[in-house]
Amino acid sequence: MKLETFFEPKSVAVIGASSDKTKVGYALLYNILSGSKRDVYPVTLKQEEVQGLRAYKSVLEIPAEVDLAVIAVHADFVAGILRDCAKKNIKNAVVISAGFKEAGEKGKEMEKELTQIAQENGIELLGPNCLGFMNTQSNFNASFAVGNLRPGNISFLSQSGALGTAMLDWANKEKVGFSKFISLGNEASLSEMEFLEYLEQDESTKAILLYVEKISDGPRFIDVVKKITAKKPLIILRAGRSVRGGEAVMSHTGSLAPADAVFTAACKQAGAITVSSLRELFNFAKLFQMGMYKPVSKIAIVTNGGGPSVNTADLVDLSSSLELVTFSEETKEALKKVLPSMAAVGNPIDVVGDAGSSRYDDVFKILNTVEDIDAIICIVTPQMMTDVEAISQVIVAHSKEKPILASVMGGDFVRRGIEVLEQGGLVNFEFPNDIVETLDLLSCGKNKKSTLVSHAPGDSNLAMLGIEETMKLLNEYGIHFSGVLMKKRDDIPAAIEKLGGTSFSLKAISPDIIHKSDAHAVLLNLGGVPEINYGWNKIIEEIVNNIPTAKIEGMFLQKMRDGKQLIVGMKRDPIFGPAVLFGFGGIFVEILNDVTIRIAPIDREEAFAQIYEVKGYPILAGARGEKLNEIGGLADIIVALSKLSVEHPEIEEIDLNPIMLSENSATAVDARMMVKKE
Amino acid sequence: MKLETFFEPKSVAVIGASSDKTKVGYALLYNILSGSKRDVYPVTLKQEEVQGLRAYKSVLEIPAEVDLAVIAVHADFVAGILRDCAKKNIKNAVVISAGFKEAGEKGKEMEKELTQIAQENGIELLGPNCLGFMNTQSNFNASFAVGNLRPGNISFLSQSGALGTAMLDWANKEKVGFSKFISLGNEASLSEMEFLEYLEQDESTKAILLYVEKISDGPRFIDVVKKITAKKPLIILRAGRSVRGGEAVMSHTGSLAPADAVFTAACKQAGAITVSSLRELFNFAKLFQMGMYKPVSKIAIVTNGGGPSVNTADLVDLSSSLELVTFSEETKEALKKVLPSMAAVGNPIDVVGDAGSSRYDDVFKILNTVEDIDAIICIVTPQMMTDVEAISQVIVAHSKEKPILASVMGGDFVRRGIEVLEQGGLVNFEFPNDIVETLDLLSCGKNKKSTLVSHAPGDSNLAMLGIEETMKLLNEYGIHFSGVLMKKRDDIPAAIEKLGGTSFSLKAISPDIIHKSDAHAVLLNLGGVPEINYGWNKIIEEIVNNIPTAKIEGMFLQKMRDGKQLIVGMKRDPIFGPAVLFGFGGIFVEILNDVTIRIAPIDREEAFAQIYEVKGYPILAGARGEKLNEIGGLADIIVALSKLSVEHPEIEEIDLNPIMLSENSATAVDARMMVKKE
Repeated sequence: MKLETFFEPKSVAVIGASSDKTKVGYALLYNILSGSKRDVYPVTLKQEEVQGLRAYKSVLEIPAEVDLAVIAVHADFVAGILRDCAKKNIKNAVVISAGFKEAGEKGKEMEKELTQIAQENGIELLGPNCLGFMNTQSNFNASFAVGNLRPGNISFLSQSGALGTAMLDWANKEKVGFSKFISLGNEASLSEMEFLEYLEQDESTKAILLYVEKISDGPRFIDVVKKITAKKPLIILRAGRSVRGGEAVMSHTGSLAPADAVFTAACKQAGAITVSSLRELFNFAKLFQMGMYKPVSKIAIVTNGGGPSVNTADLVDLSSSLELVTFSEETKEALKKVLPSMAAVGNPIDVVGDAGSSRYDDVFKILNTVEDIDAIICIVTPQMMTDVEAISQVIVAHSKEKPILASVMGGDFVRRGIEVLEQGGLVNFEFPNDIVETLDLLSCGKNKKSTLVSHAPGDSNLAMLGIEETMKLLNEYGIHFSGVLMKKRDDIPAAIEKLGGTSFSLKAISPDIIHKSDAHAVLLNLGGVPEINYGWNKIIEEIVNNIPTAKIEGMFLQKMRDGKQLIVGMKRDPIFGPAVLFGFGGIFVEILNDVTIRIAPIDREEAFAQIYEVKGYPILAGARGEKLNEIGGLADIIVALSKLSVEHPEIEEIDLNPIMLSENSATAVDARMMVKKE
Repeated sequence: MKLETFFEPKSVAVIGASSDKTKVGYALLYNILSGSKRDVYPVTLKQEEVQGLRAYKSVLEIPAEVDLAVIAVHADFVAGILRDCAKKNIKNAVVISAGFKEAGEKGKEMEKELTQIAQENGIELLGPNCLGFMNTQSNFNASFAVGNLRPGNISFLSQSGALGTAMLDWANKEKVGFSKFISLGNEASLSEMEFLEYLEQDESTKAILLYVEKISDGPRFIDVVKKITAKKPLIILRAGRSVRGGEAVMSHTGSLAPADAVFTAACKQAGAITVSSLRELFNFAKLFQMGMYKPVSKIAIVTNGGGPSVNTADLVDLSSSLELVTFSEETKEALKKVLPSMAAVGNPIDVVGDAGSSRYDDVFKILNTVEDIDAIICIVTPQMMTDVEAISQVIVAHSKEKPILASVMGGDFVRRGIEVLEQGGLVNFEFPNDIVETLDLLSCGKNKKSTLVSHAPGDSNLAMLGIEETMKLLNEYGIHFSGVLMKKRDDIPAAIEKLGGTSFSLKAISPDIIHKSDAHAVLLNLGGVPEINYGWNKIIEEIVNNIPTAKIEGMFLQKMRDGKQLIVGMKRDPIFGPAVLFGFGGIFVEILNDVTIRIAPIDREEAFAQIYEVKGYPILAGARGEKLNEIGGLADIIVALSKLSVEHPEIEEIDLNPIMLSENSATAVDARMMVKKE
């Protein structure tokens, strides 16, 4: 396997090794010597002996084969040394030294020389300007980072050395282990690509974290990422996401597909998971330390504290891929037997504040028998009786059966408990939402739950107000909603005359039909008496076929109107009173859910703020802001509906849907009001 | 002020006080005695003396006035004791005892009795079933929580005791101080409302955190929240958000405005900030500990490590309210003077990995002179040379001038630095994204930045391919795009005959007009030769008036088509190659940005996945999934465009916009292709 000797050299030359503790060359040699036994040859011009080893003046002097050269000398000398390495037939090298591409024109030239020497001599070259690398599998640390990594199954590839040092120091604190860590530096020769290819093959790497700022070869990247993600998860944090500079585009597609969106799409398409913040990246390190490499969906929550668990249940419920397991009656009965009467045996399971470790133990025993739990989130809060240490021991003991992701919340009081978790090979999440968010990201949109707004009316105790009464009420508050209720066909000519115009809509009026479109009880663009007559027949036919029991009170004739379809509505909230909703109408309101809500009373200023708040606001104002004047009429409707709702407490719900907004007017085209059944 | 004696009693009776360290009554008395000196009277039936104080058998025996009774006895005895308190004219009481409403029917009855006694005797009653409360201002801890809070300016009101204990223990670890903490318990008498009213008035409370599961009185809540937020920030975490159970609704508005959305809207309208996770709530505690009570927008970032700062800059840029300050040339020059040549003097300022504390000091001195910086985010990573302790001292010293929010990242290596920050009254954020996210939430949508997709074409080196060539290429790949290019008016009759149908669209063809609608170079719904002739004139007139230099090559006549407007496009990415975009067309694509991107080559399965991914997918499939067959034609277009893009590397961008999707067909109504200028 390519790079095998690189990662597991039997002999290493450390060029620029030092006895001076403030030098990089000291830390490098020290770290290499602190690992497993291998032949190490310090090279330095200054001393005879370095850190107890005989030092050589040049790699050429070393009286044995050398698998890997680690170079930390002034940039000016690196090329010469690399040539010596080539002469000595050294096939792997790490250049730690800075002062190349990142330092200006001269450095750029010097870096090109390194690339060339590596290419001509077949040297696998990491760097320059990097921290080095670590391989815990062979207990080898060829970096100048402070301290060693714990062994583990995660490999971390970073284009930022600073992020590397932060991650290493953090990982030791959090007891997260790594297999390989590679600081990529300037990538004069080896790039993220070769290391990704190596890590794909590397069996001791079970998950990969990647921090990138740029990718050198897109198609090859997609290819290797696809191969990796068929075997193991790959988490990518890309920095420089927001920068769109210099992208001159002429098409819509061009402006809608900036480089960042393309990068994210490419990663996703290849099966990688992209994250957007350091916390998300570091949280994945914790999740992988827990051995969770594959998406899960069914979650159980166990807790001794209400608040944190209710919030966690909320987040699971609102996540895109996770759901709370519904326990069977048998499971609930079993839980009831081991828990006090005040405990909650739904999901979350609340073992109550005074719970000792045995209560957690009992609960885990039962949950281990429930097949469709993928993972348990266990939240422990520090209460007076809480023996965090003993509870943590129980968590460790049971974590062999089903994964238990723990959030032991607090500070000094819980510290010992967290230590027990860590000694047991587990990690602790400071807050349970970190667990939910990371698990949800791990699913990578694959288990997408439906987010469609449900319209199931259920057993309602609401009845619809008659159309004439609705019209009267609306007009009384200055909301324009007009039409003529026709009881019989003979009424058509008079209705046409009353409304004026040449194009009409026709709707059946029935207390049994709430959603008229669904019932095919609406026809649009009818032109005159014969067409309306024909439409009348057609609607009756549809209703007779589909809802034969529906009582039809007549037909409602309205002038056709153009414009943008909006919705204004009201729902009386049991706690806050009338909640007035505004948003885009038609099918977009159902799917995109782009609505805003205000509590009545609403004044005109507040109504404008409400309209401004919808994402689609620019559609109303015109993408270039030229149609602000139309919006006044819309604000008036919101204010009027708010007033109506306050003054008519008997009305439970109102839909003005759609409201047609045109240049001259905002008019309700359909309206319904719901009142409590008597 | 109401509740003043409650929070600052001169004399306290502790009923159920105990010498047994495992009892709540022990912790309560112990905590009260550990505070400032006040008269404390233990009441217990069992002993003569408790924790060194003389004990009384009943409050009635106490030979002095009592301001506050703290009760922790078995639930059965609480009512009797509360009656004794009333007799003794005690006006304030806390009932710690559990076993009331939460414990079933009998408990509910007992709780009603408490409510009644409190009402009849004018007793301010907190609880039952609560942790108690703390007031660091008068050094008074009337709770059985372990340990005391640090003094501070934040007050925390919680309907969950468990969350309270977790927050307290955490706050001590993180060195966050509080003014008041109140565990609300069952709210038999005093509710969140009275305490919010108190905290609004309380001058030592500069910010409020509230955890609620239910609100008792909506309008009163809105009222008090409005008063509070006029003076100080209020952060609300509501749990039970996902539960929609039992809400029977019949209107669209009903289903679009579930109780949770109404609650959030009410809070926002009243000026409160709602958060959705424990981490967000706890992060606000840190922000307020830093004295940041008011929204900020202009941010400077200082760091010694590239990766973390680039990611932080991304998040600032992508936030809804924050922006990176653009430094003046003078500022940049000043920075250059104190920093090495490799340092970055833009924003973020990268002081480079080997930076000592003096380099940070120099930078802060300069930033303090820059007026339009609201806050500095300072990121420190642990590198070999990094003296975290000294750098932290510099941060503390300068934090008096402008707020410096620090993220010292790592573990053991940086621990001392974090301690220095905390000793200096600052807090540390584990990751810088916590700072950005919390600051963004603090602005509460008030500083909303524009999120409109920009269409600025800039200086493009792209030219548009001719319409006939475009048509030919598309048809070659099976993408339906048809029309007739008419060079002169005489071509109209033949064009009509070739296209068939009765309704047409007419567009000017010009290499100088990319966005035809913007240039008024499109007319729709033209009916025959005379109308098309008239339209021809009208378009010419518009162009002559608006873009007199535009070269017009002819007019393009197409059959009008109905259906849903979609967009399929391609942009050649410099790294990944052809990126194919799909989304909703028309104005919605620009505003809602509901698009998905895949890298070519795309097969049919991948194309279906791409279509499925847009949020508006149900609009295509029909909200009830009945129109799946239409989507095949759309997938074919995506696959064909992908193939075309791969095989024609000279094409840089393609827009098929709109594509009209109807029951029978998917047809491109407009198309343009951009190639590199020669």
